[in-house]
Amino acid sequence: MSAYDDLMAHARETEALKQVLGRLGWDQETVMPRGAAAQRAEEMAAMEKVLHARRTDPRVGDWLNRAEPADEVQQAHVRELRREHERATRVPADLAAAIARTTSLAQGIWAETRAADDFAAFAPTLTEVLNLRRHEAAALAEGTDLYDALLDDYEPGETGASLSRIFDALRPRLVALRERILGSDRTPPKLSGRFDEATQMRLAADCARVFGYNFAHGRIDRAVHPFSSGQGLDSRITTRTDPENPFDCLYSTIHEVGHGSYEQNVDRAYLLTPLGTGASMGVHESQSRIYENQLARGRAFAGWLFAKLRETYGDIGVADADAFYAALNAVESGYIRTEADEVHYNLHILLRFDLERDLVRGALEVADLEEAWNSRFAADFGVAVDRPSNGVLQDVHWAVGLFGYFPTYTLGNVYAGCLFAAMQDGVPGWAAAMAEGDATPATGWLRERVQKHGSRYLPRDLVELASGAPISPEPLLSYLERKFGALYGL
Amino acid sequence: MSAYDDLMAHARETEALKQVLGRLGWDQETVMPRGAAAQRAEEMAAMEKVLHARRTDPRVGDWLNRAEPADEVQQAHVRELRREHERATRVPADLAAAIARTTSLAQGIWAETRAADDFAAFAPTLTEVLNLRRHEAAALAEGTDLYDALLDDYEPGETGASLSRIFDALRPRLVALRERILGSDRTPPKLSGRFDEATQMRLAADCARVFGYNFAHGRIDRAVHPFSSGQGLDSRITTRTDPENPFDCLYSTIHEVGHGSYEQNVDRAYLLTPLGTGASMGVHESQSRIYENQLARGRAFAGWLFAKLRETYGDIGVADADAFYAALNAVESGYIRTEADEVHYNLHILLRFDLERDLVRGALEVADLEEAWNSRFAADFGVAVDRPSNGVLQDVHWAVGLFGYFPTYTLGNVYAGCLFAAMQDGVPGWAAAMAEGDATPATGWLRERVQKHGSRYLPRDLVELASGAPISPEPLLSYLERKFGALYGL
Repeated sequence: MSAYDDLMAHARETEALKQVLGRLGWDQETVMPRGAAAQRAEEMAAMEKVLHARRTDPRVGDWLNRAEPADEVQQAHVRELRREHERATRVPADLAAAIARTTSLAQGIWAETRAADDFAAFAPTLTEVLNLRRHEAAALAEGTDLYDALLDDYEPGETGASLSRIFDALRPRLVALRERILGSDRTPPKLSGRFDEATQMRLAADCARVFGYNFAHGRIDRAVHPFSSGQGLDSRITTRTDPENPFDCLYSTIHEVGHGSYEQNVDRAYLLTPLGTGASMGVHESQSRIYENQLARGRAFAGWLFAKLRETYGDIGVADADAFYAALNAVESGYIRTEADEVHYNLHILLRFDLERDLVRGALEVADLEEAWNSRFAADFGVAVDRPSNGVLQDVHWAVGLFGYFPTYTLGNVYAGCLFAAMQDGVPGWAAAMAEGDATPATGWLRERVQKHGSRYLPRDLVELASGAPISPEPLLSYLERKFGALYGL
Repeated sequence: MSAYDDLMAHARETEALKQVLGRLGWDQETVMPRGAAAQRAEEMAAMEKVLHARRTDPRVGDWLNRAEPADEVQQAHVRELRREHERATRVPADLAAAIARTTSLAQGIWAETRAADDFAAFAPTLTEVLNLRRHEAAALAEGTDLYDALLDDYEPGETGASLSRIFDALRPRLVALRERILGSDRTPPKLSGRFDEATQMRLAADCARVFGYNFAHGRIDRAVHPFSSGQGLDSRITTRTDPENPFDCLYSTIHEVGHGSYEQNVDRAYLLTPLGTGASMGVHESQSRIYENQLARGRAFAGWLFAKLRETYGDIGVADADAFYAALNAVESGYIRTEADEVHYNLHILLRFDLERDLVRGALEVADLEEAWNSRFAADFGVAVDRPSNGVLQDVHWAVGLFGYFPTYTLGNVYAGCLFAAMQDGVPGWAAAMAEGDATPATGWLRERVQKHGSRYLPRDLVELASGAPISPEPLLSYLERKFGALYGL
């Protein structure tokens, strides 16, 4: 066996063990008995320890030094394994343990202080988490930018500067677009009625099939927060139901189908290898967003879905497919990121990106964070934050140390804009099929251009290769301005 | 940290990882997407490898040599860990791998040859499996009896000779009892009707509650073959439904509740330690059998269940609770172990025990096995085996190498007899409560006397301690002769 073969044999087992850990997480959120949490924590900690020992195994460093990859795929495997090994070995074990312990406690403190709307009570905890992650970043960065070191874990190849260039171009046009929409005289209609939840789950499965989700390699269950879990031959999704709002279930499902199908569609040759999963958080989000927004909130699918809902539930409070399409794409002012429409969503992210980058680089203190949040929100959204739970305390991310994660949401939307433009050029019949309840011409293009490659390419390279053009915010902006300009008669 | 502390810290993680592997097995049999099997096999193989490495870790041997247990509980932990370490280290890795590979293939060959009713086609495979297990036994036995070395894995402390003494006393009285019953002029009534399967699952949950199963630490799902899985805070069971026979679902559930409750009721101080699980296969089976047979097929519970089924399904084809009790305890001649009633069941096991012991010790060749089976069957059951799938090919156990496992079923029934006799003396009100749909006086006695101790005692010591008498087949025989004597007017 060559060093490369030894490395890959070890890596395959590690990938299999990662899937096992992911499966425990799925079980915990879907079927685990309510009294099993304490035992499950021990099980997951034992698995984490096994995985950490494998990632930092000195033999891996030795194999990496001696491996002679024979082609570009082998080079990509070595690239991914080197990233993982270096990130695992650079962070001292006691620092990693302190981060795990502190963020675990911080999550509970965040939930309490959010409920009490008391940022000052949360600030010491956030400071502690931030400092630990800055120490981790310093260990990883080896002299380069601290924020970039954290970002690289979620979006390999990107930097704060590379993202700023894109995001700074988005912000003024998004602010202008929301102002024009909210200043228009059109009020979108709303659905009304009671929507049986078991029926919603059947419709969700129908929608999943429309978008090409393969139930031989996945399943849909209910969970408090929708998520996707697993890879390759076993990629599951979850959704939730609200008896008064079927959109929550159906669009959560379609979003997760974007993630879950991506994992199902990775080339089987990469199964249980370092390339056998999506390229990054950003590319993953590009797939879930293009399924959910560009495709499922488009006019063609809206027509199909309106007919389906009418057939299922009778009168749903909107007169025709055009009104349904308008209801589906209502733009409304709001404080909460997770409830935001396509126009507002990225403004929420840009705010977080700028603030967290300053926090990590030491240009903003936690003591000044609430004020910074509120003044930025007023500038971009034209509304004053009324309380911390509607502002700086709304998301769990920072409490659990996820600095560098937020920008991948907007990068995913930018990627979705680029890919959607290219797909429209490449698949002329996509919308006609969509109107008939068949998204597979569109999703098939994504599978061939993006999904099947797994982690073979760096994220930005992959999207540029797929779309045939350099990454730019322009396609996303044009799409939003055209779509919402028409909807709101601008 | 002392050597004992190091040993236990390692053991706790190993126990947590064993639970993870068990959870994968549960997932596979209940919720796994049908196309995920190949990936799951890799995941389970990777987990097995992790566990094998931990069991054979030279540090464990060193800690065991230096450990100074401070009390009897610590001694029991060391005893269990030494057993596990010695069994894992004595078997060469390539032999363990050959057994895993061969039995995996043998299972498919067994299924094919059983379907074709062709024992000769299966014989070479069975010979190979048997030879591998005999090699393993030789590695484990270190000069002592080969069969005992295998048996010890399922029933620590027992030997072929110790079991023979019990079993040889059972056989003539069981043969005589079945002859008298089948010669009587009473024909038990039968249930009739269609039994909605979702309703059966609700009744199964009701029955589980009657027997004290804790849904905060478990759940019931459907599976092709009922089983229980997990320990402590997460001990799940499965069952199955047959629209024409509600007994299959209800009694499979109650049987598995016996296993699952046992695991739930082990002292929480032993959670995720070597003592945190049932003492042996035999003791486990004693709990599932006493729940299923002595309790749930008794007259008191039959009255409660008859009323419940009548209330749920209306007319079920039997007139009253006495007729229902007779239907529940019908004794019928048959070839198949898993379908056997209480009178026939142990005769099926005794046959297998005697044959497999001879196979492992070299006193019987695979070439002569079918003939040996058929002549023994004719002697004990008074019927000629009509084809191999009704005889020597009916069970998967030997195909997958489980030599030494069968006797634990009958040992469990013998233990159940001993424990039931003692429980009746100790809990005078158990039957009155049972008639009201409350088994917890009876199961509470079992929890206190047997279940809470986990693996603290060797199996036979535990049952003797709990029942206050030496192990004997007499209580089981008396119970069967009295119960079926009354039912059949003997």
